[in-house]
Amino acid sequence: MISNIPNFLIRSIAVAADNLPWLNRKVTAALINRTINVCRHRPHPWSTVHDYVSWTSLTDQRWSARHLPAKQMTNLPDLKQLIEFFKRPLGQQRLCSKSTCLFPAFAQYLTDGFIRTRMPNASAGETEDMRRQNTSNHQIDLCPLYGRLPEQTCALRLKKEVSGERGRLKSQFISGEEYAPFLFYDDGTIKEDFSVLDEPLGLDNFPDLELRARIFAFGGDRANSVPQVAMINTLFLREHNRLAGEIERSHTDWDDERVFQTARNTVIVLFIKIVIEEYIHHISSSPFHIRADPSVAWDAPWNKPNWVTTEFSLLYRWHSLIPDTITWNDKPYPVGMTLMNNRPLLDAGLVRAFSDMSSQRAGHLGAFNTAETLLQIEMLAIKQGRLCHVAPYSDYRSYVSLSRPKDFTDISKDQKVVDFLRDTYKSVDDVDFYVGLFAEDTVDNSPLPLLMLRMVAVDAFSQALNNPLLSKSVFNSTTFSEVGWKTINSTSSLRDVLARNSPGVGDKQISMTASSWKYR
Amino acid sequence: MISNIPNFLIRSIAVAADNLPWLNRKVTAALINRTINVCRHRPHPWSTVHDYVSWTSLTDQRWSARHLPAKQMTNLPDLKQLIEFFKRPLGQQRLCSKSTCLFPAFAQYLTDGFIRTRMPNASAGETEDMRRQNTSNHQIDLCPLYGRLPEQTCALRLKKEVSGERGRLKSQFISGEEYAPFLFYDDGTIKEDFSVLDEPLGLDNFPDLELRARIFAFGGDRANSVPQVAMINTLFLREHNRLAGEIERSHTDWDDERVFQTARNTVIVLFIKIVIEEYIHHISSSPFHIRADPSVAWDAPWNKPNWVTTEFSLLYRWHSLIPDTITWNDKPYPVGMTLMNNRPLLDAGLVRAFSDMSSQRAGHLGAFNTAETLLQIEMLAIKQGRLCHVAPYSDYRSYVSLSRPKDFTDISKDQKVVDFLRDTYKSVDDVDFYVGLFAEDTVDNSPLPLLMLRMVAVDAFSQALNNPLLSKSVFNSTTFSEVGWKTINSTSSLRDVLARNSPGVGDKQISMTASSWKYR
Repeated sequence: MISNIPNFLIRSIAVAADNLPWLNRKVTAALINRTINVCRHRPHPWSTVHDYVSWTSLTDQRWSARHLPAKQMTNLPDLKQLIEFFKRPLGQQRLCSKSTCLFPAFAQYLTDGFIRTRMPNASAGETEDMRRQNTSNHQIDLCPLYGRLPEQTCALRLKKEVSGERGRLKSQFISGEEYAPFLFYDDGTIKEDFSVLDEPLGLDNFPDLELRARIFAFGGDRANSVPQVAMINTLFLREHNRLAGEIERSHTDWDDERVFQTARNTVIVLFIKIVIEEYIHHISSSPFHIRADPSVAWDAPWNKPNWVTTEFSLLYRWHSLIPDTITWNDKPYPVGMTLMNNRPLLDAGLVRAFSDMSSQRAGHLGAFNTAETLLQIEMLAIKQGRLCHVAPYSDYRSYVSLSRPKDFTDISKDQKVVDFLRDTYKSVDDVDFYVGLFAEDTVDNSPLPLLMLRMVAVDAFSQALNNPLLSKSVFNSTTFSEVGWKTINSTSSLRDVLARNSPGVGDKQISMTASSWKYR
Repeated sequence: MISNIPNFLIRSIAVAADNLPWLNRKVTAALINRTINVCRHRPHPWSTVHDYVSWTSLTDQRWSARHLPAKQMTNLPDLKQLIEFFKRPLGQQRLCSKSTCLFPAFAQYLTDGFIRTRMPNASAGETEDMRRQNTSNHQIDLCPLYGRLPEQTCALRLKKEVSGERGRLKSQFISGEEYAPFLFYDDGTIKEDFSVLDEPLGLDNFPDLELRARIFAFGGDRANSVPQVAMINTLFLREHNRLAGEIERSHTDWDDERVFQTARNTVIVLFIKIVIEEYIHHISSSPFHIRADPSVAWDAPWNKPNWVTTEFSLLYRWHSLIPDTITWNDKPYPVGMTLMNNRPLLDAGLVRAFSDMSSQRAGHLGAFNTAETLLQIEMLAIKQGRLCHVAPYSDYRSYVSLSRPKDFTDISKDQKVVDFLRDTYKSVDDVDFYVGLFAEDTVDNSPLPLLMLRMVAVDAFSQALNNPLLSKSVFNSTTFSEVGWKTINSTSSLRDVLARNSPGVGDKQISMTASSWKYR
């Protein structure tokens, strides 16, 4: 994100900024504005509904927005040819030097709540065309925890009349640890209380009753997909209930509703702080610690209503970050065995789970490095890009102010990648957006390649810092209570949240960044 | 809006700005920013759902937003006492020196599409509490013409397969003039085609079959309420169909959908241009011709998502503007006889209707000047304000940077108003928001009193100029077609639209401003 400045200088500024709040604010503002200004600001003129501007394309958020207009491509290679581009050769898994498995876990949790492709319901006669739509609220609202709709939030809440406590989410204790309640009865039918929740996505593929018995009643239909995502949702469930308890004690006159809403306000902002200060910091190639300073956004020209784009529904499918096998509580699980399986999490408990994810390295993001089990989803991504007439890769390079590649060698320094692309595409201008994203080399000091890094950063800053809870007249201690405000100001990482909710964190490494990693 | 500058100087700048585009742009930007900056920018922290900040108050737009937080008032006088404050004494109607009856007609049409209190459906067991909610799309989207929901738009459209024409709205011709189709069969049942439309509001009070037979199938549930509102919707219906025809002829390759969407894009922007350049200009006390220059909004800190407020659902009830009797086509109609009655419009035809509305003066806005028929709605407004715990009048004076009244004499120079308030309220700080709004004297050269004028101007500019169709990457000829773009650039008034849709306008006065009126 910073270029033309020697590395040592950047590192010195970063150290200085860590110690001088005024400098940190200046550098943060400059970095964020510069990052966002590489492309056009919202509102996006187009969505997937029409290939031209219409009132529907500008207002109906069931359709996904577009960074670039639809482009009908010909000369595209067959999907069968492209599968080889993603396939990780047996025994040749490449790992990422910077990221632990906590990084893809968090990325998946974040995006499952925000970038929500509408999945076709085949049994209701819906076609693949549904993937042009989304089911997002277009806000970072922690819907995996709180649900997407008001009636879902209601179903997840523990009413004061039942428990005598105010503002809590329903939960259960297993081996002394707090988790969400289970969704199903033992016979595999959904508990009546939870009938309004979105059914876990792809559940039909997992008829095993024992597996189903451990599915949590979560707000999000993707939050049970793998145990490391359920792990993060469990953490925020505990934090919500802990905060509700603290707020209840400090405000004996507040009712159930106000305690709940104030805890929720706080947890959403904690999450956004972690997105900026831990997750984006991890992704960034710069050593500078960006602070989630909402005032940067208040009067900014880029502070415009959020709208998830069709490009983002592709951009964030980081399957190659998933190693072939992840070890939970000393037991290795091949990827396929973790799908919809919460047993590894329940066996390990929350601290061990976080610690395990933080001590294993993620896969290297890029070509020829996707686990066999996930290859079909890579193909679905390319199909979706073509269904939505997403413009080719090279157009997006120009869009975010990067050079447009003139030859396949401009995309990657990896000869194997270049050879594959040259053998597969007629021209460098034909390369599918999704393929190009993963064909690029990763950026020094970042787990991501350049185009992806730029696009992730634009949307992360411009769609997180404009959250209504961070707005000028809202971001103050009245909104969060004194307890909540103090908590917000003392939280920067998942580790901070884990430590106050689960005993035994001690000096365990809980981090998206590998302990062995150093800036180059 | 401009203060401390001598009147003659303002008038000279206005004349200069009318002739110098660069000066006009500068003055427009300065005026608009200054007007909006009298109070806090959106997002509003509160809505009618909670008396504190919550995720629901920040995101669920079914509830109305709040400029100021809820305030529980005691010491309020009984409604029965307040009815006298509004009552127009028999034969003592006061008329407005500036406004014709076209002004309240347009105001009602504009607000019925945008500020939409949710009316309790008593037969479905809904209570008065429903009035805390709204059914607005929170955009100036011409929903009275196009409907509030996608399926309503669909029901109003004439499909190409039926007519052979592209992009049109359904219509009928009566005596050679184009109108919307009628909603009911002769027996008073709704035509199947239109079953998805919102039923005209308050229809149950008008069982007369002859009256029902002339109700139009409009997108808006309030667009049939009086013939002068139906008149404006009819004008934009004609303009839509005229434009669709022109666009169809220039773009023979465009399908039904694209012609429709492009005509709709254009008509919405024409409407916004008229809102700013004719309606707001009429309201403004300044002679300066503000241009609807969208670039003022593009990077402005006040360009934040719209949200209709509970204050606005009260602020815009300008019942005293309605004279006791309005003459249509030489026939005088007392107000009560015009409700839900489209006969005056059909008898007069569109040009005569606009000309008649433009040649009769509106009532003077203020106390003791509401027609008998409308008094009960005044009481409903005060009740709604109290139901929503709207803060008192004096708090809103401070909110928009006006002096807080210390005594009743600070509210009005009219002794009758001061005496009434003093006899009715215990303290000047108790005065209901709604009562205070109408108790103030009108501003020189404006039909409105000061607090109302400020609040109308803030929301008009900040919620019209940020329309997505006016945004930086959208406001160009591609969005509207060359035909549409030319039309936008040559339209400033209702007269412009009427003249190209209805023969016989000639030199007739078609204006919100009375022909006899002069700046003082």
